[in-house]
Amino acid sequence: MKTVRLGLLGCGTVGGGVVRLIRENAANLASRVGAPLEIARVLVRDPSKERVPELSRDKLTTDPSAVLDDPSIDVVIEVLGGVEPARGYVERAIDARRSVVTANKMLLALHGPELVERAVRAGVDLAFEASVGGGIPVIRTLREALTSDHVTRLCGIVNGTSNYILTRMRQDGLSFEAALAEAQAKGYAEADPALDVDGGDAAHKLVVLAMLAFGARVPHDAVYTEGIRDVEPIDHEFAARFGYTVKHLAIGQKHDGHVELRVHPALLPQQATLANVGGVLNAILLEGRALGPCLLSGRGAGDLPTAVSVVADVVDVAGARLNGAAGLMTRSVRFEDTRLAPIDDAQCAYYLRFQVFDRPGVLANIAGALAEENVSILEMVQRGGGDSRGEPVQVVMMTHIAREGDLRRALTSIADGDDVAKPTRLLRVAPIA
Amino acid sequence: MKTVRLGLLGCGTVGGGVVRLIRENAANLASRVGAPLEIARVLVRDPSKERVPELSRDKLTTDPSAVLDDPSIDVVIEVLGGVEPARGYVERAIDARRSVVTANKMLLALHGPELVERAVRAGVDLAFEASVGGGIPVIRTLREALTSDHVTRLCGIVNGTSNYILTRMRQDGLSFEAALAEAQAKGYAEADPALDVDGGDAAHKLVVLAMLAFGARVPHDAVYTEGIRDVEPIDHEFAARFGYTVKHLAIGQKHDGHVELRVHPALLPQQATLANVGGVLNAILLEGRALGPCLLSGRGAGDLPTAVSVVADVVDVAGARLNGAAGLMTRSVRFEDTRLAPIDDAQCAYYLRFQVFDRPGVLANIAGALAEENVSILEMVQRGGGDSRGEPVQVVMMTHIAREGDLRRALTSIADGDDVAKPTRLLRVAPIA
Ligand SMILES: NC(=O)c1ccc[n+]([C@@H]2O[C@H](COP(=O)([O-])OP(=O)(O)OC[C@H]3O[C@@H](n4cnc5c(N)ncnc54)[C@H](OP(=O)(O)O)[C@@H]3O)[C@@H](O)[C@H]2O)c1
Ligand SMILES: NC(=O)c1ccc[n+]([C@@H]2O[C@H](COP(=O)([O-])OP(=O)(O)OC[C@H]3O[C@@H](n4cnc5c(N)ncnc54)[C@H](OP(=O)(O)O)[C@@H]3O)[C@@H](O)[C@H]2O)c1
Repeated sequence: MKTVRLGLLGCGTVGGGVVRLIRENAANLASRVGAPLEIARVLVRDPSKERVPELSRDKLTTDPSAVLDDPSIDVVIEVLGGVEPARGYVERAIDARRSVVTANKMLLALHGPELVERAVRAGVDLAFEASVGGGIPVIRTLREALTSDHVTRLCGIVNGTSNYILTRMRQDGLSFEAALAEAQAKGYAEADPALDVDGGDAAHKLVVLAMLAFGARVPHDAVYTEGIRDVEPIDHEFAARFGYTVKHLAIGQKHDGHVELRVHPALLPQQATLANVGGVLNAILLEGRALGPCLLSGRGAGDLPTAVSVVADVVDVAGARLNGAAGLMTRSVRFEDTRLAPIDDAQCAYYLRFQVFDRPGVLANIAGALAEENVSILEMVQRGGGDSRGEPVQVVMMTHIAREGDLRRALTSIADGDDVAKPTRLLRVAPIA
Repeated sequence: MKTVRLGLLGCGTVGGGVVRLIRENAANLASRVGAPLEIARVLVRDPSKERVPELSRDKLTTDPSAVLDDPSIDVVIEVLGGVEPARGYVERAIDARRSVVTANKMLLALHGPELVERAVRAGVDLAFEASVGGGIPVIRTLREALTSDHVTRLCGIVNGTSNYILTRMRQDGLSFEAALAEAQAKGYAEADPALDVDGGDAAHKLVVLAMLAFGARVPHDAVYTEGIRDVEPIDHEFAARFGYTVKHLAIGQKHDGHVELRVHPALLPQQATLANVGGVLNAILLEGRALGPCLLSGRGAGDLPTAVSVVADVVDVAGARLNGAAGLMTRSVRFEDTRLAPIDDAQCAYYLRFQVFDRPGVLANIAGALAEENVSILEMVQRGGGDSRGEPVQVVMMTHIAREGDLRRALTSIADGDDVAKPTRLLRVAPIA
């Protein structure tokens, strides 16, 4: 019986998990694929580092060509991370007609469409379940379960670090800095947390999801992106008073002819399923025209959850190769001509926290400036005030749905006046029930 | 190019949705499968009934042989419902080496393992995504996403009718009867609601899930099954006081060598994601040894959601046929020798609502009877009492984890005494965080 030979690029957190799962489940996997899987070669930087015990050291190499130019290798698994040299390696593997499995969201966000097209031209598969939502089968669901449906909207908690920080801030009133420090101490956040807490990682994942869900080909840096640094404990408190929970969301919507993609903290109704996905968990809500809402939730990272997704992809692409069906799954990505809508065209309800001077007429001025731009107020609550210490008063207004461009004009005019002491905090209400 | 010819058994709610989706997405589906899908023949009872406009009437037949004995048909889709004649038709289709897609949970719960084995012997596929959780891709996740994992536990809200009724009772204090009547008026419950509200439908689905998750071959009537008729509004109130929400759950767990399957109302922590799946939505929480928890939620019924799942199965089995890979997916069900654990062996924390006579010593007697059987009390709350009208007092105790057999012995001894006025209400706490 033929063996499916795997070349592993990288053997860190995820790669180690892949080696373990493939060893532990060898018999099962062989019967699923129709042939045994063999880890033939493993590329690393430092051959002296300790590896998972399931890996025999004679497989290790520091020479990329030992994996990429070995004609006996059927499937290449890229778990290096980063754009270069991963990109060049993946291209070489594809051009040599190997199917590729990758967990690399950054690579896909920057070069996904061209890599998919390259794989289609070569007649091989490019699979990337693990790139979004770790162990959550969201890519599979978009690719397979929804073949006869059209996704109209997706809304996800796709960064576990941000979700952990917001959860701790909300539950125990921690400041952002304290919650971040705690996340770092627990190993949930990197020493440099920027990619996570400033939303870049979530934007990468949103670009990958939008490629599958909407056929969108979007430069990752064109996605409107806000992180969670500016959310303060007081925003969690006010949100709760209005019945909401603050989450960091990646939101994609398709309107006729254009796609709206945005990453930012948002208010979700407290009873919403997505609002109750806490800690480092991830979740993605898909809305299909036929299907209605479908929520998938689970661990977004970690060696074994992520490796479960990688191995599921390996089973798919290895099976397809054996059956002469390589490339079929990858050909199903249908790129469409999509225009990315500017954030000013977004239509949301808003949470606005004004820090105003406590004097007569201020609220009337603000409400007037909003009304001028067709932004109407649904509810209002105020904290502080009535004393003479001159401390600014916190006033939170929840608006009806408004166009973001209009709202921003109103906020600019408010900022130009002399009623507010500090910049206004704006949070969008998520477009889900 | 070859066409994949489909024979449809039944064209009611789900069948009509399947016809619509296959028509509307013809081009997409053809490129996914590698050949166009054609609905060749459609079996119904009453040829004069109105059908979805996408169906041309000349496809209709009332003669099963016109579908089952037509050698040009590649895939049979069974959406008749009920055990007979569906079972015989599915067997004939398999024996004639057609792949079969079915949405029929009752058929699978009663005859799943033998049908799977029959399909394996014939080298064809038997796919049944739509049989559990309507549009939720739970079968696919169990089959594909978790190839390298072991499911240790599953816990699901799999009956939309029961979930709707419990949600209405909790949110607005409706009685069971009022909530059921409302569900019937809205078309969420059948005229005869027994299969839904007494737990039989959920038990069917649990048997199907357990077959895939644990390789279990379990007679559906061996599953411990309780419905929701006995849950009273006061139970929702007490549960909330302890921080819980009452849901109707299907629970499966694998311990070494045996499987525990049970269907009953259960208490979930209010913050648990599963507790916030309301209305007619369904949700299934899978726990994998490597993956950790993974929750899938969405519409459990309805023409289009269910049809999305049926069509996804059609794409899989049709593609496999074209690639000479028919039967591979079905062969992956691994039956194991599993013993079903008796309910007395279950280990849960319990909610016990006693209706006691308001007199000294009663609580001491009850606590003593529980202690006698090693059931220890975690919290207690009492309502009513202190007046002299002789009305029984409601006392709710939450216990630590105990063995169900022990608890039942304690309850029998309490019932044999003269402290309680009415039977004690027992609700289990769900085994999830
Ligand atoms: N960690 C997660 O939970 C998670 C979840 C989802 C997706 N991902 C994605 O999975 C990928 C891998 O992540 P990871 O956490 O496993 O990373 P990691 O622990 O840093 O492992 C990276 C591995 O790649 C090797 N490597 C890196 N650059 C190399 C180079 N130029 N030449 C040769 N070997 C090189 C490293 O070798 P040495 O061991 O010799 O240093 C190491 O074995 C990333 O794309 C990440 O975004 C990770
Ligand atoms: N409805 C849902 O939301 C849902 C969700 C998940 C799974 N399911 C499952 O899907 C299956 C179908 O459900 P459904 O709601 O679509 O049922 P349905 O609306 O009652 O449709 C049944 C169809 O089968 C035909 N039929 C029944 N018995 C027949 C017989 N002996 N000979 C010929 N034709 C026969 C009926 O013909 P006529 O039209 O001529 O009467 C009708 O077209 C069931 O197994 C159900 O459990 C349903």
